[in-house]
Amino acid sequence: MKKYRNISKAFLVFCLFSLLSTGSFAQNKATWIWYPGDFEIWLSNDMQNRRTERGTFFPPFWRQDSHYVLIDFHKVFDLKEAEEVEIRAEGQYNVKLDGKMISGYPKKITIPAGKHKLNLKVHNQQQVPSIYVKGKTVVSDSSWLVTFEDKEWIDETGKASDQSGTTWLQAGSWNFDNSELPPSTFKLNTRPQYAVSTKKTGNNLLVDFGKETFGFVKLHGLKGKGKANLYYGESKEEALATETCETMDNLDINRSVAGDSLINLSKAFRFVNIQLDPGVSIDSASMLYEYLPVADRGKFKSSDAQLNKIWDISKYTMELTTREFFIDGIKRDRWIWSGDAYQSYLMNYYLAFDSRSVTRTTLALRGKEPVSSHINTIMDYTFYWFLGVHDYYKYTGDKEFVTQLYPRMKSLIDYCLSRRNANGMMEGLAGDWVFIDWAEKLSKQGEVSFEQLLFCRSLETMALCADLADDTSGAADYRKMAADLKTKIFAAYWNDDKKALVHSRVNGVQSDNVTRYANMFGIFFDYFNEEQKQQVKQSVLLNDKVQKIVTPYMRFYELEALCAMGEQDYVLKEIKDYWGGMLDLGATSFWEEYNPDKKGAEHYAMYGREFGKSLCHAWGASPIYLMGKYYLGVQPLTAGYETYSIQPVLGGLKWMEGSVPTPGGDIQIYCSTNEIRVSSPVGTGVLKIKSRTKPVCKNAAVVSKGNGLYEVTLKKGQNYKIAYKL
Amino acid sequence: MKKYRNISKAFLVFCLFSLLSTGSFAQNKATWIWYPGDFEIWLSNDMQNRRTERGTFFPPFWRQDSHYVLIDFHKVFDLKEAEEVEIRAEGQYNVKLDGKMISGYPKKITIPAGKHKLNLKVHNQQQVPSIYVKGKTVVSDSSWLVTFEDKEWIDETGKASDQSGTTWLQAGSWNFDNSELPPSTFKLNTRPQYAVSTKKTGNNLLVDFGKETFGFVKLHGLKGKGKANLYYGESKEEALATETCETMDNLDINRSVAGDSLINLSKAFRFVNIQLDPGVSIDSASMLYEYLPVADRGKFKSSDAQLNKIWDISKYTMELTTREFFIDGIKRDRWIWSGDAYQSYLMNYYLAFDSRSVTRTTLALRGKEPVSSHINTIMDYTFYWFLGVHDYYKYTGDKEFVTQLYPRMKSLIDYCLSRRNANGMMEGLAGDWVFIDWAEKLSKQGEVSFEQLLFCRSLETMALCADLADDTSGAADYRKMAADLKTKIFAAYWNDDKKALVHSRVNGVQSDNVTRYANMFGIFFDYFNEEQKQQVKQSVLLNDKVQKIVTPYMRFYELEALCAMGEQDYVLKEIKDYWGGMLDLGATSFWEEYNPDKKGAEHYAMYGREFGKSLCHAWGASPIYLMGKYYLGVQPLTAGYETYSIQPVLGGLKWMEGSVPTPGGDIQIYCSTNEIRVSSPVGTGVLKIKSRTKPVCKNAAVVSKGNGLYEVTLKKGQNYKIAYKL
Repeated sequence: MKKYRNISKAFLVFCLFSLLSTGSFAQNKATWIWYPGDFEIWLSNDMQNRRTERGTFFPPFWRQDSHYVLIDFHKVFDLKEAEEVEIRAEGQYNVKLDGKMISGYPKKITIPAGKHKLNLKVHNQQQVPSIYVKGKTVVSDSSWLVTFEDKEWIDETGKASDQSGTTWLQAGSWNFDNSELPPSTFKLNTRPQYAVSTKKTGNNLLVDFGKETFGFVKLHGLKGKGKANLYYGESKEEALATETCETMDNLDINRSVAGDSLINLSKAFRFVNIQLDPGVSIDSASMLYEYLPVADRGKFKSSDAQLNKIWDISKYTMELTTREFFIDGIKRDRWIWSGDAYQSYLMNYYLAFDSRSVTRTTLALRGKEPVSSHINTIMDYTFYWFLGVHDYYKYTGDKEFVTQLYPRMKSLIDYCLSRRNANGMMEGLAGDWVFIDWAEKLSKQGEVSFEQLLFCRSLETMALCADLADDTSGAADYRKMAADLKTKIFAAYWNDDKKALVHSRVNGVQSDNVTRYANMFGIFFDYFNEEQKQQVKQSVLLNDKVQKIVTPYMRFYELEALCAMGEQDYVLKEIKDYWGGMLDLGATSFWEEYNPDKKGAEHYAMYGREFGKSLCHAWGASPIYLMGKYYLGVQPLTAGYETYSIQPVLGGLKWMEGSVPTPGGDIQIYCSTNEIRVSSPVGTGVLKIKSRTKPVCKNAAVVSKGNGLYEVTLKKGQNYKIAYKL
Repeated sequence: MKKYRNISKAFLVFCLFSLLSTGSFAQNKATWIWYPGDFEIWLSNDMQNRRTERGTFFPPFWRQDSHYVLIDFHKVFDLKEAEEVEIRAEGQYNVKLDGKMISGYPKKITIPAGKHKLNLKVHNQQQVPSIYVKGKTVVSDSSWLVTFEDKEWIDETGKASDQSGTTWLQAGSWNFDNSELPPSTFKLNTRPQYAVSTKKTGNNLLVDFGKETFGFVKLHGLKGKGKANLYYGESKEEALATETCETMDNLDINRSVAGDSLINLSKAFRFVNIQLDPGVSIDSASMLYEYLPVADRGKFKSSDAQLNKIWDISKYTMELTTREFFIDGIKRDRWIWSGDAYQSYLMNYYLAFDSRSVTRTTLALRGKEPVSSHINTIMDYTFYWFLGVHDYYKYTGDKEFVTQLYPRMKSLIDYCLSRRNANGMMEGLAGDWVFIDWAEKLSKQGEVSFEQLLFCRSLETMALCADLADDTSGAADYRKMAADLKTKIFAAYWNDDKKALVHSRVNGVQSDNVTRYANMFGIFFDYFNEEQKQQVKQSVLLNDKVQKIVTPYMRFYELEALCAMGEQDYVLKEIKDYWGGMLDLGATSFWEEYNPDKKGAEHYAMYGREFGKSLCHAWGASPIYLMGKYYLGVQPLTAGYETYSIQPVLGGLKWMEGSVPTPGGDIQIYCSTNEIRVSSPVGTGVLKIKSRTKPVCKNAAVVSKGNGLYEVTLKKGQNYKIAYKL
């Protein structure tokens, strides 16, 4: 068998592509490119398989996908003059010019003047097939088209099929602009960091880096023959507990000349307990701190020193958990969990606004076709993935990413739709983990209201994205499914006596139980009417008889719901109490869980293990999000901050100031009890002010909206100073 | 986030698996194991990417899949006494005993007496995750269970879900029984082979190996500095045509001491033209012949020396194309094409009966989920894949393979079913290559009858395999779909005037054209009634006005249809003429195409290239199949030769003898015009004899079936000698 191809065929194809490709704007900056999502999947495998437990490999239990191993890249160029082009590829490759193969593995070719199609095909099993092409105008960038299968079948005369069956996507890229540093060489940045104290006991060292940190320990002046055992601790207790600490390194040393040695697997710790055999010695230990460089944008400062520290430690917690991807905790899982990542996305929009960290994480979580399980095997985590796309578009306005992602969204929602029960609701089937929260006696049986709310929001997200991808009938279908489901949710779960959504329905019978989950999401999803909102606030949110939330994970949403109901005063106290409580115990980053009733080292235990708890967990950093969105009060109204609102709420503070990042720059806000100052480099904003007197602004109209609420329309690039009375 | 697992959970899971796994028979021979199909996919990528065209990398255009990169292996053992177990893995791995991780990367563990679950998890991106476990009774073999995703979700108390969502398959394996030689080290065998003549002209050598061969050229006594260029030729003309030969090597030599050098990429050739720069010299060239070792089972010898040579050269052609997989031709594509492979399967059942070559090829062709195109992008090639499974079961009776494959069959047929048109027929959509045959002016438009016949047979195959996989409702569905389609086929294509199936229907209109394709398949699929069969034989098969077939590919089926109609005399003449024609031209293996009208080097051209034709192409070897099935006349009646028939037909020969392999041994046959001798080590056979007088057999009853046909029932292990009169 032989697929017959000749040049005449290539030219037919060429003509087709000319129509498709030449519209793209040539960016003229060469960068390494690949099939979109493939680098992210490859890198996420690499990262997630770095988890160890006491030196043992501990990979995820869910499916890990591979990149496509054979990729076709092409672009059509129209050159004014002949151009010499440099070519690099990661993998075995060939190069075609106008459909004709160039012999061997060319590193430089000359493309004549005129319209030409340049095509590279790359195979790589171990790494992601990727290319780097650089000429004067011919460069590799995301305007190139890529595919993993070529369906240009031809007949025996060499005539191409009338209609192409090949799906082309725009190439994926990031910041690999150096031809010598292809994607497989990716590493996070490092910088030296030094111990704040080292305690020597005989031949052993207990090194304290002063705060939670992450990186590679470096042993200085190491020499001798024997064992060097390193026990890591997020707490001193853990580092000293050589039998139960979560991570360690056991090294065999054999060097006669003293020198420095770097541990090859980065870890999370504050303390390192270094135990050396008698024949082994070191002078000291330091480390290479390992981090993702992101912009320093979101800021917050207020009249409350404790709150400021909470914000700073939240920021540091986010810095530590924002890595190759948004991960849960830096000590233990180091995996990408969709529910945890979703909160990181939200915090990120008020901190670094690092969009690429969101898209990398979104692509890695989604993986490849076919969908064979929920994301991380958890039903709610599938839905958070959709919510993440919803918010990503809202905050960034990045239509291109959403459009390219849309087919992968469709197959994931199809998986969900195929698993609905006879009532059109999602219920845990074999293999579905209905997680919700770590909480005692939380029923996962039957149709759980919380899951239906997330499912409904996912369908709304599908409708939104179908519009962006010009899938008109899809948009209508999803919109109708979402509306129908919302109706069903209220029919099935709203209880007029309890004035709340109940927890679940089992075998068609409404359960008696009310939990916070569906009710708090119903608030910030805006699914309740005003009367229901107020009822839910009293009957659930502020009702101590309803089972309390103990994880920072769900506390995030609980406090958000309260803020959305205008309870900033109450929430501020809760923040100072809960997060302040961790600070009082010496936290240098925020924890996976905090229970004020516990004492001493009890705080470090979890999952039945003495040091099982993560002391640096992304979901512990939620004050970042709450301060930005509900105190500084900034949020986009339409995609990418084309329009946005600012409603500063002091919540009991004397003053606060800060900046909130947007795609077009940072919005600056200052607010005291009698003055608000705002400047914004983007879009059209509406500043909402609660004031006992009509606010005064020199350069903008102040419009009264009744009930002491006033609005000022904000224009791009202007500075506003408003006098008001709280 | 953290998936909570403790030992109590592990024991719950353990109990579940105890039920599932301990029924397996312990084979007690350790072998490397992997996720079924993954080694095959990995190896096929490796092999198919070895294609070069004049030194340039030339990979397939269809999607190449990857193995799963993270695999979970387990088995439950019940040990009478404690056992020390050796553990090897390809990749990063961990080991769990009864759900508890064993620290580090253990190479030896001790399993205590009693019931225990041993679990390994392996990650490997570059190679296939695989393991080798060897103790006294605890060994890795295909009774282990494997998965690529673990869906044993648990609640916060550590309780496992009531029903597992994880799909477990039995591990894949082959013959990697040596712990030191894991699957990634796979190489075909080699043995030295020497030139029959070498012609030196100045510094250059023209080496002739005497016949078509495949392997690595070895340069002896190589020294000097400069270029050594090797031009390969299946013909002398090709080796001498340095500008147009299909394969070549350009080496940079720089060695002061003379030594041997082996070319690192194996190639197909008979002649090698070695051109050396003035500063470079060699003493001689030999080669390492590269081959898959398979059993020497099928045999054929007759009173006709030319036919014997045809059979021998067919056998050698099959030997050369039976490699890591069944490939098309050894010079050019070296890819796995489903239509070509299907013919190799059939020949293989009458030659080496190497079942593993069939299953390897079947798994490699199928690839991974999701199905995004037809196999090799060709609609007919998808259907041949199903036919291959059908025949594999018929010849081998290997139910386990079919049962494990069934989900992959289902998803492939679902792809087809989803692409039916409003009439329930398959029509080429964008991206579907409707191939049929290389033939002039062959219409692929509309509903092609040939495709519907193959589709119908594929549905019948699905019904058969659904039964094997205990999918009762699936079996009924597929059976009904097949029956409905068969009815539609005759309604749409049978033309009473033409006494044949017409070629196609376009926009609801029956075409005027009759081609051989659907008609010859209709014969050996047994879709015609007896009257139609005879009509088709006259109006199509023996009708010169119907467009002739020129490829050995379709000639295979044409001659089979004629044999199935009892035209062995005619077919024998055709074979001697066509294949004998190639021998007369000096063929040492059979060609991709043969046109007796061409002269000299014209025979080597194809696809518009001077040496484009493959002179060793699997589909050229069909006499192997025809002789075994229609002359020696052996075929299974029920799966795996539980029952079978033998109907020797001399077709004009004075005598013939041979052996036909079966799963239980070789059936031996001798047949002259007055004597038949048969012995069979398997099943229950029925020997059918056409005789002018009633045959005489000492140890079996001869039953007359009328019309000069007699039958003898054959028992396993008996020798039969029958006197008869042709």
